[in-house]
Order: sequence, then C-alpha cells, then structure tokens
Amino acid sequence: MNILDGKKVSNDIKNEIAEIVTKMKAKGEKVPHLAAVLVGENGASLTYVNSKVKSCERIGFDSTLVKLDADITEEKLLAEIEKLNTNDAIDGFIVQLPLPKHIDEQKILLAVNPDKDVDGFHPTNFGKMALDMPSFIPATPFGIIELLERYKVETSGKHCVVIGRSHIVGRPMSILMSRKGFPGDATVTLTHSRTQNLEAITKEADIVISALGVPNFLKANMVKEGAVIIDVGITRVTDSEAPRGYRIVGDVDYNEVAPKSSYITPVPGGVGPMTIAMLLKNTLLARSRHNQA
Amino acid sequence: MNILDGKKVSNDIKNEIAEIVTKMKAKGEKVPHLAAVLVGENGASLTYVNSKVKSCERIGFDSTLVKLDADITEEKLLAEIEKLNTNDAIDGFIVQLPLPKHIDEQKILLAVNPDKDVDGFHPTNFGKMALDMPSFIPATPFGIIELLERYKVETSGKHCVVIGRSHIVGRPMSILMSRKGFPGDATVTLTHSRTQNLEAITKEADIVISALGVPNFLKANMVKEGAVIIDVGITRVTDSEAPRGYRIVGDVDYNEVAPKSSYITPVPGGVGPMTIAMLLKNTLLARSRHNQA
Repeated sequence: MNILDGKKVSNDIKNEIAEIVTKMKAKGEKVPHLAAVLVGENGASLTYVNSKVKSCERIGFDSTLVKLDADITEEKLLAEIEKLNTNDAIDGFIVQLPLPKHIDEQKILLAVNPDKDVDGFHPTNFGKMALDMPSFIPATPFGIIELLERYKVETSGKHCVVIGRSHIVGRPMSILMSRKGFPGDATVTLTHSRTQNLEAITKEADIVISALGVPNFLKANMVKEGAVIIDVGITRVTDSEAPRGYRIVGDVDYNEVAPKSSYITPVPGGVGPMTIAMLLKNTLLARSRHNQA
Repeated sequence: MNILDGKKVSNDIKNEIAEIVTKMKAKGEKVPHLAAVLVGENGASLTYVNSKVKSCERIGFDSTLVKLDADITEEKLLAEIEKLNTNDAIDGFIVQLPLPKHIDEQKILLAVNPDKDVDGFHPTNFGKMALDMPSFIPATPFGIIELLERYKVETSGKHCVVIGRSHIVGRPMSILMSRKGFPGDATVTLTHSRTQNLEAITKEADIVISALGVPNFLKANMVKEGAVIIDVGITRVTDSEAPRGYRIVGDVDYNEVAPKSSYITPVPGGVGPMTIAMLLKNTLLARSRHNQA
C-alpha cells in the first residue's frame, strides 16, 4: 500500500511555482495576480478564501480579496465581476461558492471571462476540457490527475469508477479519466444516486474515485485487492476532542480499505491540499497565456 | 423485440415542426433560417448538405447554402463565418465537416457564434450540456435521446455502455445518459480503443450504444438478453448489387443481436434519419431564442 501524499505534492508544486515567480521577478516581469470574490460571512468560505490568499502571498503572487456584503444585489455583483474581467492587472479570479440565495449562481459563473476563469467552472472551459482543447481544469479534478501523474499510477485501460456526478468533481473527473493520454485512457463508469448495485460496480474497479460526501461510506468489501483509492470526501464530523470541535472525515473507511489498496489518498492530507495548489497553477497558466496574447 | 423506428420518428418530428412553421407564417412571423457552409466538393459532404437543405425546404424553413472553393484560405473562411454570425436573417448555421487539411477545424468551430451553433459543437454549448444548462445538443446524441424518450425506454438506474469516445457521439452520449432526468439517470460506462475486456462490459449492459464504425462488430454473445441496442455505426460497404454500389452497415450484427434485444435501432432507418430531424429542431430552437432575445 502506497500513500498518495497530497500534502507533500501540493508543497512541491507550490515550491516549483515560487521558483518560477522568483525568476519572473528577477526578469522584471509582472507576477501572477489572483483575485477572490467573497460575498457575505460564511465561516467555511472565509476560511477557504483566506487560505487561498495566504498561499498566493507565500509563493509570491499578487492577490486581491474583494469582500462584498451578503445583501449585495445581483446587478452590483455582476458589475464587480465585470470590473475584474476588464482589469488588466488581474490574471485570474474566483467567486467563492456558495453565494447567498437571492443570487443566481449560474448567471454569475457565466459572467466570468473564460480567460480569467481559473476555477474552470465556466461552460466554455468545461466544454474545452471535454473536447480535448487546452482549458482551465477545475482544481479538485486537476489535483487528482496531478497526483496520479506524479506517482505514475497506471490508468490506461484500467476500469475507473467515479462515485458522484457533481459539476465540480464527479462529472469532470469522469471526463478527464477517459480522455486520451496519461493520466487518462481509462474505461470510466460514472455512478450516482440512481445507480443500482453500486457495490458490485466498485468491486470491479481498478481505480475508485469517491466524491459522495458520506463519511466512511466505502468499506473493504466494496473494493478489490490492489485497487487505487481516491477519496474526495471532506465531511465535517463533530468531535469534542478535536481542537476545532470537528474532524474532517472522508468517504473511505481508511482503516479497512487502506490495507487492500495499492495506492490511497488519506483524509486529510490527500486530495484536499491539492486543490489550492492547482488553483495557483491555473493562475500561473492564466498569467503566461496573457503574456502570449 | 421492438424496433426503434428512426425513420418514422424523424418524419413525425419534421411534420410537427412543419405545423409550427405554418402557424408562424400565418401569424406573419419570420420562419427559422438555417445556413450550411460547404467547403470543396467532397461527395459525401455534398450529399449530407443537400439533404439538410432539402429538409429545410420541405418543412418551410428558409435555407442558404454557402459553397466555397476547396482552396479558400482560413482567413477568408473565418470572414464568411463572421458574416453568418452577424447576419440577423440567419438563425443557425453549420459548417459541414471534414474541412480541407490546410484549415484548422478547431479554429473554425470556435469562431461560430454559440447562439447560432445548431450543431452543438462549440465548447460553450458542449460545456453547458455537461453542466445541465440549456444548450444546443449535438444532433446525433440528441436524436438518440429523442428516440428513447418517444419510445419511453426506461433509463433510470440502468447500466448504459457507450462504445467510442468521439466528440460528436460517444462523449456527449455518455454525458447525456448520466444527466439527471429522463432520458438519463443511467449508470454510464464509456469504453474506447484502450478498453480491456470490452465483451465482459457490454454483456453486463442494459443499454448498449455503439458508435465505433466497425461493421457488424457487436455480436449476440456480447449482449445480454433483453438489452436495448442503439447502433450509431454507418459504414459504407462496397456492394455491387446495391443501386449505389455500396450498402450502409451498422456496428451491430442485426440478425444475431435483434432477437436477444428488447429494443433495437435498425441500420439504415434508426439513428441516421434522426440526425437531420434534430438539426432542424435545434434551428427552430435558435429561432425561438432569438425571438425571445
């Protein structure tokens, strides 16, 4: 059993990017600039956004946090996005989800300039990904691909079962794993809430990618010996003994499943830390594309 | 065994659209207008394009055929596309593929205004489809969905195996079958040239959609009793006794497989005729969207 160490790899990536940024600075080039839009005061969102801004600082990116009131109108939010779209200083930006209920999330995501959409959530980037064109790939799936690549996990011809068809993980993951090339070329089965006999399907899988959000859902009897296990679940479970009052628990019953697996991502320290690293990678990519344009 | 009669259904759809167009005319409204761009003199392409134009005439659409020399420069072709993009009289248009080799197909498809992209090949439409937003769905997959819908073939929770990961059939089909709703909600496995043990996978399928292009590939021993069989293959096979010197042969060995199936599409007369019908449906949709705008 080998651990796919997302914490280590994400640090490696951040260090690699920091080195590139140092060289950019030495040459007098503009460094990448990421902006994050945060609407309201949702605790988890604030934590995520702050962590993204901090990562930017650490690796030498410029960053801007646009904090907006929870009761901002859709119209005004669209105007803020248009400012970021047209501000040449900003290479890429994200709109932290979820948004307050009075705002149409889809409308907001469609308003983001696809060339600055470092979250890869805009349909134009999503479509390019599905059609094998260069694009911004959503950070979590991109992080999983990067882990598989760096650990040289064989994927060609393997049967990969993805659990969950969300727009930000399951769906893009199923597309990426079945694209041509490495990591990819897998035979992919996308499963979801309507799937029958899920256990029989996961048991056949060479690679299981679980993005369900149900703690400890995947048990040892649901996977075959030697399978690669990718756990995207990050559910907060109350734990009075934990310093923050909760623990992060994955979809995979790690203690049971790990001994049977060939490779496995722990939670925390697996897929989670990769997400920010890939967001930074997308921002660097946005910067270099703008340089070329 | 029931036949999914694409010839009949496509005629039904054309008649339904013709009725709508008659009403539009009666109200003095502008009728849908489809343009087709044909570069060069490729025989099959000419046949397809002419057939599309004829279908437009039959149901009362306006149509325009833009015929361009095979040696047109990419720049001039892009200028022609820009003309169609900005011509308010045209609701939707298609660029008949393949294009001559000196032209970058991807660049051309990206130049088509997504709001007029009735082929659904632009990444923005593709991404919207994958993200469950309203969009133009590529005609062949759209036709298969329509067939399943009209024949009320159950898809929820069924295991659907798609053979082939092409941009115009296999990939979009795999997405559509696993989207929420009907037809959809299937557990979908996308298989392709790198897939191992394909036979074992198709044997488990409740629904097989084959878009491989290998005549008579799918045999009776590869499918289970009662499966739904969708044959997207249309390979021309030389046949001196056929009036045109060739026959169209599907991926499915029909004589063997049909008796085992619950539903099956014949070739010809199954998926093929649906494609033009759905192109017309997309054009009607483009017209009504422009009316709303």
